[in-house]
Amino acid sequence: MNCKQIRDYGIKIGSLPTGRLNKITDVPGVKVGHYTLCDERHRTGVTVILPHEGNLFTNKVTAAAHVINGFGKTCGTVQLDELGSLETPIALTSTLNVGKVADGLVGLTLARCSEDGVECTSVNAVVGENNDASMSDVSDRIIGEAEVFAAVEAACEDFDEGDVGAGKGTFCYGLKGGIGSASRVFTLGGGKYTLGALVQTNFGVTADLMIAGMPVGEYIVSEMRRRSEDIKPAAVDRGSVMIVIGCDLPLSEIQLRRVFRRAVIGLARTGSYVGHGSGDIVLGFTTFPRNLDNSGKGDEHNEYRVTGALDDRYIETVFRAAAESVEEAVLNSMTAADRVVGYSGKVLCSLNEFLPGYLALNRKE
Amino acid sequence: MNCKQIRDYGIKIGSLPTGRLNKITDVPGVKVGHYTLCDERHRTGVTVILPHEGNLFTNKVTAAAHVINGFGKTCGTVQLDELGSLETPIALTSTLNVGKVADGLVGLTLARCSEDGVECTSVNAVVGENNDASMSDVSDRIIGEAEVFAAVEAACEDFDEGDVGAGKGTFCYGLKGGIGSASRVFTLGGGKYTLGALVQTNFGVTADLMIAGMPVGEYIVSEMRRRSEDIKPAAVDRGSVMIVIGCDLPLSEIQLRRVFRRAVIGLARTGSYVGHGSGDIVLGFTTFPRNLDNSGKGDEHNEYRVTGALDDRYIETVFRAAAESVEEAVLNSMTAADRVVGYSGKVLCSLNEFLPGYLALNRKE
Amino acid sequence: MNCKQIRDYGIKIGSLPTGRLNKITDVPGVKVGHYTLCDERHRTGVTVILPHEGNLFTNKVTAAAHVINGFGKTCGTVQLDELGSLETPIALTSTLNVGKVADGLVGLTLARCSEDGVECTSVNAVVGENNDASMSDVSDRIIGEAEVFAAVEAACEDFDEGDVGAGKGTFCYGLKGGIGSASRVFTLGGGKYTLGALVQTNFGVTADLMIAGMPVGEYIVSEMRRRSEDIKPAAVDRGSVMIVIGCDLPLSEIQLRRVFRRAVIGLARTGSYVGHGSGDIVLGFTTFPRNLDNSGKGDEHNEYRVTGALDDRYIETVFRAAAESVEEAVLNSMTAADRVVGYSGKVLCSLNEFLPGYLALNRKE
Amino acid sequence: MNCKQIRDYGIKIGSLPTGRLNKITDVPGVKVGHYTLCDERHRTGVTVILPHEGNLFTNKVTAAAHVINGFGKTCGTVQLDELGSLETPIALTSTLNVGKVADGLVGLTLARCSEDGVECTSVNAVVGENNDASMSDVSDRIIGEAEVFAAVEAACEDFDEGDVGAGKGTFCYGLKGGIGSASRVFTLGGGKYTLGALVQTNFGVTADLMIAGMPVGEYIVSEMRRRSEDIKPAAVDRGSVMIVIGCDLPLSEIQLRRVFRRAVIGLARTGSYVGHGSGDIVLGFTTFPRNLDNSGKGDEHNEYRVTGALDDRYIETVFRAAAESVEEAVLNSMTAADRVVGYSGKVLCSLNEFLPGYLALNRKE
Repeated sequence: MNCKQIRDYGIKIGSLPTGRLNKITDVPGVKVGHYTLCDERHRTGVTVILPHEGNLFTNKVTAAAHVINGFGKTCGTVQLDELGSLETPIALTSTLNVGKVADGLVGLTLARCSEDGVECTSVNAVVGENNDASMSDVSDRIIGEAEVFAAVEAACEDFDEGDVGAGKGTFCYGLKGGIGSASRVFTLGGGKYTLGALVQTNFGVTADLMIAGMPVGEYIVSEMRRRSEDIKPAAVDRGSVMIVIGCDLPLSEIQLRRVFRRAVIGLARTGSYVGHGSGDIVLGFTTFPRNLDNSGKGDEHNEYRVTGALDDRYIETVFRAAAESVEEAVLNSMTAADRVVGYSGKVLCSLNEFLPGYLALNRKE
Repeated sequence: MNCKQIRDYGIKIGSLPTGRLNKITDVPGVKVGHYTLCDERHRTGVTVILPHEGNLFTNKVTAAAHVINGFGKTCGTVQLDELGSLETPIALTSTLNVGKVADGLVGLTLARCSEDGVECTSVNAVVGENNDASMSDVSDRIIGEAEVFAAVEAACEDFDEGDVGAGKGTFCYGLKGGIGSASRVFTLGGGKYTLGALVQTNFGVTADLMIAGMPVGEYIVSEMRRRSEDIKPAAVDRGSVMIVIGCDLPLSEIQLRRVFRRAVIGLARTGSYVGHGSGDIVLGFTTFPRNLDNSGKGDEHNEYRVTGALDDRYIETVFRAAAESVEEAVLNSMTAADRVVGYSGKVLCSLNEFLPGYLALNRKE
Repeated sequence: MNCKQIRDYGIKIGSLPTGRLNKITDVPGVKVGHYTLCDERHRTGVTVILPHEGNLFTNKVTAAAHVINGFGKTCGTVQLDELGSLETPIALTSTLNVGKVADGLVGLTLARCSEDGVECTSVNAVVGENNDASMSDVSDRIIGEAEVFAAVEAACEDFDEGDVGAGKGTFCYGLKGGIGSASRVFTLGGGKYTLGALVQTNFGVTADLMIAGMPVGEYIVSEMRRRSEDIKPAAVDRGSVMIVIGCDLPLSEIQLRRVFRRAVIGLARTGSYVGHGSGDIVLGFTTFPRNLDNSGKGDEHNEYRVTGALDDRYIETVFRAAAESVEEAVLNSMTAADRVVGYSGKVLCSLNEFLPGYLALNRKE
Repeated sequence: MNCKQIRDYGIKIGSLPTGRLNKITDVPGVKVGHYTLCDERHRTGVTVILPHEGNLFTNKVTAAAHVINGFGKTCGTVQLDELGSLETPIALTSTLNVGKVADGLVGLTLARCSEDGVECTSVNAVVGENNDASMSDVSDRIIGEAEVFAAVEAACEDFDEGDVGAGKGTFCYGLKGGIGSASRVFTLGGGKYTLGALVQTNFGVTADLMIAGMPVGEYIVSEMRRRSEDIKPAAVDRGSVMIVIGCDLPLSEIQLRRVFRRAVIGLARTGSYVGHGSGDIVLGFTTFPRNLDNSGKGDEHNEYRVTGALDDRYIETVFRAAAESVEEAVLNSMTAADRVVGYSGKVLCSLNEFLPGYLALNRKE
């Protein structure tokens, strides 16, 4: 595993400071787990994002979804839109595995509720996907309930990025992509808050790649042509990008969705035109309490919960944090990934094979 | 002015109890004002709904919009959707007057802010409309700023229904429609709440009219044929219906919109198929405080406000209240209206000219 | 199997004529298949709606989705919204089986494409659901790929309604519901068209049931109380309703969605308030050609297809057809269903146990 | 008038070729007109975009709207969303003038229809806005019907950009913005097509300005500090951006909206984070015939029109054209604008006062 981030090249994205790990898990309580399958026929897996370690079905978090481009199979968005709450971990996987992974989240929830003595006969599984068919044999839909359980079991704070989990077989701007993450911390009024993004990247035309404004993609195209007949740039935008945003901010459901609508800015700054054949979807949550204790409303008013909504004067910084985190997470999904050879021989180079050369030629002293 | 409500015929809509006046103004603080113009060439006007008597620009209320069918010219919905708050009264008027009435609300807001010493260079006017062109000469767009000020000046709790204000020249199921209202009161947990609807009706095919399940429309069609050559049933659904819902419930922005999405149920129960040529739009608000005092969060956390969100287990009753209020408000817009003759001679009969006859024939003892 | 329709009681819904079977399969080419599981622990199944018998993946149909209330787990709507086309049959099943049934549709598509020599590595499975947990043990998610294949195999025109397929374990207004269907035929300009609806019903408060305007629900509540301690009316609205609309009309994607937005009118007329805990979702398609031959554009313009869009002056009738079909399909889901006893002993009576009594008492001679 | 475009600096945006004028009017038939008011108290105006010179009310064009951020007062979007057609020119103006300008479009339509002997009692005016209150006294809402007529009268192909019309008093990244435009031409299959954008810019934080990936904004901030106490960079994102996209492509309504959703990519590439206080809205149309002649359907099928829908395999290029045109139009709104001093003395510098200096320092030979 490479696990380099774009900052290791001295490249800074945006203006806000990052969290400790510069990952979505900088949001207190959030964990991420992978199950990676790399055998003769497969380069695939599943990645789960857990807002907290408790039973999400009984302790939901405020959540939202936003579709940037909807040529994709993400499930669970109907209820997210209606109720604005999340009751399972978010799972990311390969396109044709969505049904089985959704069923795996159902199994996970039933098991957890059974443990906790809670009845559960209905639960909304949220699953996003990228298509790794160019690297992995997808026809057997090999990722299911057992793999979901394994990914949840493996969840931790300092998780791997790059060619792991749901990102094992995906690409980005014709190079190896996968899982990337980034975070921002900032103070609003009297509170310190964290917002993080995790992406599963599988999109982009090589020539379009832009890093902090630098046209790195054009350099890579010419380098690929120079180096080898076997390595070809991506000329068409196929694929998708899943974006998970987590935070601990006091945001109403419509505020959360407004924040998610800024994710596309991060994508655009890496060179994306949000291709037709792409499922570009934002999913996410805030861990801010849905039910503030000691709220002064009195116990007799059990008909409503008391919760926080950010003063809109402060939301600008949150928008910026979302856009910056997504932009940086996309780049991290590439710098953290090693070169991968697909089951049918297709080669996806690592960005690290090109970026040092570009920087040597183009950076001012 | 007739001012009869459908209940005066002993017809009860739904199961929840009404408020004192059975009008939207049963919601504490809400007022409604009309300006009615009835001269040689005009049967038109403007109706304003005020969530409270304060300066709405500095003291906004949580609000939402929902489009049932969007063949209409309602303005102000973009910002309602984005921010979920209302900063002017809601005005209803005639289609071609929307621009002038929106400008009138801007003038009203500038005047009020100037009085209060508040700077205002931007304000979102919310105006709904029905087309009264069959009864009134609309080409001169005669309702504007002065008429908006007059309607606001006239605002009160026990406002008139029927052929007044923005409802002076509108129709309903081929009869005289106009302004109608209804309300429901109910207890949820430890709180007593009120929800009310006000409609401006201008839609419907006569034969479709249904009252509490009774096919009154078919009777009216045959009666019209029997009585006169001059009075014709409406055979095509032209026109619109504006629905304003106000309440004092602790609802988040997405909950408020969920409530508004039940308005169509009330329309359907009166016989509507939500015609193509119709702007059927729900606008409204809750007066529940956006900023609860004594919330226990401490003054240093000025970055967020603390507000209430209904426990979803209780929302069912609110849905029912919305559907019932809208159904009854539509019927009240008809029973409260007298026969009106348009500027070009077109006659719109009152429902009261037919309903007693129908009931005499069809009611069981 | 009962297979009575509401018209067998002499009750007519709406004004448009029905198709030959009064089912969605009156739309030429459409077929419906069930797989029903009724064993010691289960009353469940899967129902599939096929727009045509060809390979849908290579021969897509124009389609849309509309969410009336989104407390549900329907999958596939993101891509329906983005592209407006359908590439699998629509499957309906039990809530916790959505993942497995979606995976079954993937398997079905891969098999069909493999047969046809077409590469397929990505397909958007569309699955709707109702929760039959009160009648069937749902924890084992027993419906999957094999059952989907069986339902497709069984697809035919004159399919059964009532307690079959995905409707085996569902209820409606506290009685046995299930699968119901209805259709309308009409002439628009120079063309004869058919629109049909199929519903999977699982919603409603018994007292609210209304049939053609008659308050039958109130009678049933009192009858239930009179007859037995064991049979109880539904006092709370739990559950969902899935609505599938098919037609052969020249409709653009936004026109199709406009038609689907009228489905709620049909629901409302049977007594629904569209409960909070309900996934009330409309899915469907038109079989009108997406690519008209002989269009006069010339072969060199392969960059666009030529297709039809209804003149909006004619869409009113289509709205009416949709509302009427849905209303009647809901009632047919009840009249076609026999009494069913759940795995844990819960009894759902048939509407047929009450309706004759009500009619005998209330119908005028 | 300056009328320089960013290309005059040798800076190329994107990869597709521009049209002849590099303006929205490269789309055949499209014209743009301004009315500019620059007196002691005002720097304001109105700009109109005409899809064709005919009567739009009787000869509508396929159209759509897309809200990037909805803190704005744009009117007419409800009907655009419902019907997907445009029946007035699109007008852009100052925030508080929206009502009066909408009324002006109504007047314009009534006059035109009266001339043509067509009855018109309802028309959907589409008006977008930016807030020029920092440069112009907005309280008197000085732009109305006469100014709309004047702008339409002045409409031409080779219209001015920069500080004209609705852009007279607006800013962009703390510099003078205003009206900018750009276009792209491309071949898809057997057809040659044009897409153009026109923007009214009034947004952005100076430090964020990015031109073709270059961080020009940071340079400008330090230069402003160096040069003068009086000229201050914009530190907060206030304001809005209106984006009008026109094209002659065979696009269905949902395809047109998909194209418009790529506009945000262009904004993002100039440095925008899509601020909270911003109405960032896309409006536009295609002039492709809604009713293809000689379509082979036969005259008897008057119930539907035959129209074109782009094969989705070709839509990628259109997405790129939209993003590139918007990015370049924003930059052109700045390069074409001269320095303007507001009515209260506020100075907005021209980008041209800084860009040569930046390029001299930073461009590689």
